Amino acid sequence: MDKLYVIKIGGNIIDDEQKLSAFLQDFAAINENKILVHGGGKLATRMAEKLGVTQQLVDGRRITDAETLKIVTMVYAGLVNKNIVATLQSFNCNAIGLCGADGDAILAHKRKHPVMDYGFVGDVDAINTSLISNLLGFHIAVVFAPITHDQQGQLLNTNADTIAQEVAKAMSNLYDVELIYSFEKNGVLLDAEDNSTVIPEISAAYYKELKAGKKIFAGMIPKLDNAFEALNNGVRKVIIGNAEQLSELLLGKTGTAIINE
Amino acid sequence: MDKLYVIKIGGNIIDDEQKLSAFLQDFAAINENKILVHGGGKLATRMAEKLGVTQQLVDGRRITDAETLKIVTMVYAGLVNKNIVATLQSFNCNAIGLCGADGDAILAHKRKHPVMDYGFVGDVDAINTSLISNLLGFHIAVVFAPITHDQQGQLLNTNADTIAQEVAKAMSNLYDVELIYSFEKNGVLLDAEDNSTVIPEISAAYYKELKAGKKIFAGMIPKLDNAFEALNNGVRKVIIGNAEQLSELLLGKTGTAIINE
Repeated sequence: MDKLYVIKIGGNIIDDEQKLSAFLQDFAAINENKILVHGGGKLATRMAEKLGVTQQLVDGRRITDAETLKIVTMVYAGLVNKNIVATLQSFNCNAIGLCGADGDAILAHKRKHPVMDYGFVGDVDAINTSLISNLLGFHIAVVFAPITHDQQGQLLNTNADTIAQEVAKAMSNLYDVELIYSFEKNGVLLDAEDNSTVIPEISAAYYKELKAGKKIFAGMIPKLDNAFEALNNGVRKVIIGNAEQLSELLLGKTGTAIINE
Repeated sequence: MDKLYVIKIGGNIIDDEQKLSAFLQDFAAINENKILVHGGGKLATRMAEKLGVTQQLVDGRRITDAETLKIVTMVYAGLVNKNIVATLQSFNCNAIGLCGADGDAILAHKRKHPVMDYGFVGDVDAINTSLISNLLGFHIAVVFAPITHDQQGQLLNTNADTIAQEVAKAMSNLYDVELIYSFEKNGVLLDAEDNSTVIPEISAAYYKELKAGKKIFAGMIPKLDNAFEALNNGVRKVIIGNAEQLSELLLGKTGTAIINE
């Protein structure tokens, strides 16, 4: 099977024009099939402030009312997505920016929850692997904004880490998939404030141990759960690491490798 | 050659949720290959007001400074484009929303003008017909937002009528192309205030006569110039008419037909 990299870019990198550009230059240099998944959280928060739309967060998840949905659609699928694509084009990487509605790429449903109403938040049902593999076959990198749709005309806000995981899992039927979560830290850290305390490898057993000992920063737990979920569903390798070291991450020289055993 | 409709939707229709939805239902029902090109001018103007960004218009063209470019990228390529695509999906029309940077679909350069600085406004250099025909070949309708790129990483604001014309011309090498400019009026009118004064047919000679007699509303002239330019460059037929009557326009039952003789 051909190799495919699914790379999530997040955190502060999106907000930093120079760091983002350097990351995209590294991404452009990858010769294999590649998919980029991005968020854009802080830009959306800032836009909401400017427009006087009050934001609510519960457990790090944005409550997406109708006005907030408009903002994330504008910022994620418009401003951030199109600037990333234009920058990749400037590095001679042909790329296409999609949200989940485009080509019915990512079908989702509005989250049902017994207590909370998350608003227009989508949980993923299906990935259109044939569309994506057709685009990759044309040597086009696919750049996903974290917006999905429900086939009933409703756009939905969806967590970018989850999209990366769902895309990686689905594409592993067709490709040898490596999933990379890149952000502003050097990997999963024993001390969240100290970038030198990267854990080089986390197995399922070690993850249990780390969680039991409360040695993992709470914010990392959804990302690690996502990583193991991907690994248990066909993805060959998951790496968590620093977006400023993408080339080294791809070579396995840095970051945290999530492994089955 | 297979038939291809290139349809521009503009004017007040984009702002009216019900009219837009009815138009998209008609668009979805077209069985042939189809491309939709949209603007979103008033939404962008309103967003600029909310964000306190002052807009300048010269001869109906927006002067696109850096802040305005951000707004049109958000509104056109994000909010409007993705909502159109999601609505088309709900009508069982598979569609993909692109700006010119996506897949290098529309290459442009920043406008050079001896006197005026239009800012980040793009004039079209090339249309990626192979990307577009590949997507059409998958039975996907292509929905263009009027944002292009210069291959150097710069997004550019580009007139949607011009994009429709350039796409229609370029695609006429591969398809039998019909170009439809649809908006809130019933066609080219002898009296701009009276929708019953539609001119059914305008030839090049009659257009000259109408212009000489100042019988054409100034705002229609760029649209008509565009129409003749398309007709003189491979497009088989150009129709100008009401977006609320798309099915009738396609059947040639209403609107203004622009013809060579």
